[in-house]
Formats: sequence, C-alpha cells, structure tokens
Amino acid sequence: MNNRVIELNTRPSLTGYGSCAGKTESEGPISQDFDICFTNDGMNQSSWEKAECELLSNAVGIALKTANKSFGDIDVAFAGDLLNQCTPSSYSFRNKNIPFCGLFGACSTMAYSLLLASLCVDGRYCETAVAATSSHFCSAEKQFRYPVEYGSQRSPTSQRTVTGAGAFVIERNKKERVLIPRVLIGKVIDLGVTDSANMGAAMAPAAAESISEFLSATDTVPKDYDMILTGDLGKVGSIILKDYLIDKKGYDISTVHNDCGLIIYDLERQDVDSGGSGCGCSAAVLSSHIMKRMNNKELKKVMFVGTGALMSPLISLQGESIPGIAHIVELNI
Amino acid sequence: MNNRVIELNTRPSLTGYGSCAGKTESEGPISQDFDICFTNDGMNQSSWEKAECELLSNAVGIALKTANKSFGDIDVAFAGDLLNQCTPSSYSFRNKNIPFCGLFGACSTMAYSLLLASLCVDGRYCETAVAATSSHFCSAEKQFRYPVEYGSQRSPTSQRTVTGAGAFVIERNKKERVLIPRVLIGKVIDLGVTDSANMGAAMAPAAAESISEFLSATDTVPKDYDMILTGDLGKVGSIILKDYLIDKKGYDISTVHNDCGLIIYDLERQDVDSGGSGCGCSAAVLSSHIMKRMNNKELKKVMFVGTGALMSPLISLQGESIPGIAHIVELNI
Repeated sequence: MNNRVIELNTRPSLTGYGSCAGKTESEGPISQDFDICFTNDGMNQSSWEKAECELLSNAVGIALKTANKSFGDIDVAFAGDLLNQCTPSSYSFRNKNIPFCGLFGACSTMAYSLLLASLCVDGRYCETAVAATSSHFCSAEKQFRYPVEYGSQRSPTSQRTVTGAGAFVIERNKKERVLIPRVLIGKVIDLGVTDSANMGAAMAPAAAESISEFLSATDTVPKDYDMILTGDLGKVGSIILKDYLIDKKGYDISTVHNDCGLIIYDLERQDVDSGGSGCGCSAAVLSSHIMKRMNNKELKKVMFVGTGALMSPLISLQGESIPGIAHIVELNI
Repeated sequence: MNNRVIELNTRPSLTGYGSCAGKTESEGPISQDFDICFTNDGMNQSSWEKAECELLSNAVGIALKTANKSFGDIDVAFAGDLLNQCTPSSYSFRNKNIPFCGLFGACSTMAYSLLLASLCVDGRYCETAVAATSSHFCSAEKQFRYPVEYGSQRSPTSQRTVTGAGAFVIERNKKERVLIPRVLIGKVIDLGVTDSANMGAAMAPAAAESISEFLSATDTVPKDYDMILTGDLGKVGSIILKDYLIDKKGYDISTVHNDCGLIIYDLERQDVDSGGSGCGCSAAVLSSHIMKRMNNKELKKVMFVGTGALMSPLISLQGESIPGIAHIVELNI
C-alpha cells in the first residue's frame, strides 16, 4: 500500500462521549469540561485497579447515555489500558453481553480504539461501536515504578499518569456530529531511548513519523488543521517532536500543536513535572475539552495523534530500549 | 446487530503461514508438522522474554517467506501475546517499518488477530496483513505463577503453556487457498471460576456461548464442520464445554470437536497435566498441523474457536474471578 492513510468513505460519527477524572485532574484548567470529577482517587473501591475499572465503567456509561444507547445496542467494544492483562477493560465489559476486542497500545489507546472502531463501522461490520480507555496514577505507579505510598522522588522529565477515562460511541450517517474522515495506523519505532522516566522522548520519533506521513500522504500542511493534538508527549516530548519535525521532515507545527498532557494540568501551578500521560490523559481531554470545542465550532479540523510508549518494566531491566507508536485519527465537524 | 456472525464477502485467504515450537512440543505427536523445532527453550537468548520474541520473529519470517513476501509488502500486522505490555509482539515488529496493531486476547490471540486482519483485508483497508502470536512456558510461568526454577508442583487441572508461535499472511482473491468466509467476535463471560490452575473451566462458558451463537446464526449444526477446534481448553475444559453445549444449548459437538491443547501433546506420555495452553498453542497447531490437513483436503471446513482466560494474577489475588472470551474464525478450502 503506497498510501498509508486510510480514507473512511462513510465518515463515521462520534455520537456519544463521556469523561471521568480524578482529584488532581479535577483541580486542573479543564475541570469544568469533565462529566464526572471524583474527589477521592479511591472511588470507594478496595484497590487502585478496581478504582480504575470504576473510572472506565462510568465513562462508558456516560458515552452510552449521551448517544441515547444501552449496552444492548452496542455491536462491539474496543478497549484497552495500561495495566497488565488490561484488567480494567476486560472487567468493565465483563458479562455486559457485548462483543469485545481487547487492545494494547499503551497511551495511544484512545486514538487506537477509535481507529479500529471507526474501521469496523465504516466497513459495515457493525452499526454501533464503543471505543474506551482509562488510566489511574496509583495503579500505574505501582505497576511501572513504585507504589505511591513509598513516596519515591520523580524526575523532572517524568510525566504524571492521569487518573481518568474517556469513552466514545461511533455510528454511521449522523452528519451533524464530529466525523472521522481519515486514519493512519502507527509503526513501532525505537531510536534507543532507555530512560523510563522520559517517555516523551521515547514516543516523539513515532509521533513525528506518523504526522509527517499523514501530512505527506494527504497533501496537507500543518496550518490546514486547527489543531495537531498529540496525546501525550508532555513538555519534554513536545519540544523534541517540534524540533524533529522541522529538522528532519521540514514541517513546522508549532502554531497548531498542542498536547493532551499539557492541556489537562497547569504545569506552573500543579506538581506534575513534564505534564500528563497515560491512556486516560488523551481519553479524558478528547472526550471533554476537545469535543466541547469542536461542537462549538471553535475547532473544525483536528489531527489527533495518540502516542504510546510500549514500555515493559521487565524488559527495560533487561537493558532494552523503549519503542514508541503513534496512531492518527482525523476529526472534522 | 441481530446476527453477530460477520460475513466476509471477499473471503480473505491465508497465503502464508509459519510455526515454531520448543523442546517439549517438538517431542509431541505433531512435531513433524512444525517449520522450526527448537531443541533448547532458551533459543540462545539472554532471557525467557527475549526467547519468546525469537520464536515469534521466526514464525513471522517463515509466514512471509511462504507467502513470497517481505516486510515491505505488509500493510499492517496484528499481534499480541501473554506477557505484560505484550513485549514479544511489540519488540518483534520494532523498527520493521510496518503499521502495527497490538492486541490483548490472552490465549484467544491467534483467532483474534486472524479475525481483525481478515476484516481489514476484506474491507479493503489493506491488501496484505499479518496475524501472529506466541507464548513461552518459562516466561508465562514466571509471570503468572512461579519461576520454573522454583520447581513448584502443578495441579492436574492446570495446562502447560506452550513454547511456540504461529503467524499468517492474509490477502484477498487467492481462491485456491484456505479462506475465511465468516468470523464472530467473542464476549467477556465470567461465571465465577476463581481457580487460576483451572483455566479450561474459566474459558469453557465463553466457548460455549460463541459456538452456539455461531451455529444458530449461520443455521448450521456441528456435523456441518469437519472439525470444531477449540484452542485451548485442555482435557478438563473440553469436557465441560461438551457437557455445557448439550445440557444448555442442545448441541452435541463430541464427534467433531478437538482442542489444540490436546493435539500438541501426548497426554499419556508427556507430563503436561490437562494439556497445552497459551497463545502459542493454538497458533502453532493451526499454522502447522491444521493447515497441512486443510491443504491436503483432509479437512475442508473448520470452525476455529480461540479461547482466552483474561486472567490477571494481581486481580485474582484481590479475590476476583476469571473472565473468558472466545473468538471464532471459520476456515474453508
């Protein structure tokens, strides 16, 4: 296939969306846009893992409600998350009587699940699909670094895993909604970054490859988009991405670029180092703040670039570097 | 969608396939059918995780070769495995310059990756796709139970994770090959099994639901298939599946049923408890023994039912039961 960009002729629509956020996220600059703000990150559950499941289930519930759907109307759900064996996703859809596709795309999962759901809807393999993902600061720290109770010090290049979730309902032929006209599936790119406290640097080359490929294949330039939205490179990764795209590919995205990890927190005021990350970061930002701005017509054309660091603590300890991936979903209204 | 079975009008073809197996598998009854038999499960790598990566990379290499393709001809790869963050899959496709979709479907991944790859090919979103998966006894024991070096005792209901891998190349319009006419996406079903040493019992209800739904929706009966092949319920799970299908759904599959976990080992002669499991079990059996028998026309119509236990050791320790899933790919020649 010479042209990697996939055109979706039916332009599937986002007919429902829901977002949930944790305490720190609810104290950030876009808190008023979230559907549910939890004031306690335990969410009245007995473990951080079950708390994350609660986040995801709530986001899916709101997405269904806004689309005026029930579980019985959903033909297939695409979901994944950061936890080993993707437990929040599997357990959120357990016994819900819905065909289920489990995904692993690390922090790229919101874009990735939207991409596969929109292919299935466009290809008429289903009428109504759900795409959803979540992350939780405490479950992710426990699994990837140290339990938060240890109080270990964080590096200034590190990103804070967002406690949050987002979910979408995707259907055909609802033209007044936000539409998905084109998508691009990312490649696994590894330029040798080994610092697991600097995920932005590990993901930036994959984002650069996907963005330049998308621009080139669609014969567009950065200013054709109201926003090129990466999720989530944070402060350090965003700088690397912009420099890399100018130096290596000749594209200057600086006037239209933003990053979900920079939108969700106030980096000056909140103690979040290089910004937000985690599947729930781009999921919660897209399904709240960005959808609101698109529905208001403030943003009409957004290139949403979901970035993921396919990092395993075990394989990192074995000396391996961290591969990145970036999936693109174009959103128009 | 009233009919959950998805018809693939172009009937995508399996134009290439490759299989690799470890030492115990190479001493089993179908060893002559594998493309590569490793005599040392370390595969000359420095860790079990890297050994599994080697298995998967080799299977993909053979699949490409038999399809007369190189990496540059592949439009998209679908792959996943059992390890946390699906490292063998991500690292096998790292810097291979191929769009990559990471999946988590536990032991159902061979059927699941074939299913999504065939949808993408059928929908003309790509010309050539790869579906691949792997597992390794030692990497899986280390992650899910105890490192094998501890020599812990195993339960008679437990299944042995297969050291093996399988990969397929999927294309359109190659009519003389094995074709995929219909698929079904599984649901996450959990009837409350909590014994992580009895995965067959955890997966059997999901297999029963998918099989009965497939038979009912296609208006077929078990004897319309030369084989209903589950992967991998093992001895205990296969008995539960057959009893459950007769008692609850009225289907007797006993004359046509077989299970990849029973095919790959000789349960009388080899010390494998209830049989084989792991993504690599159904992958290695399908991509070797079953493909050989289909190409010989011994088997013309196979219902391949990939079963997965979406088990997390962490969430099990928190008292949760184990959900199962079963994806179906019909294979005809």
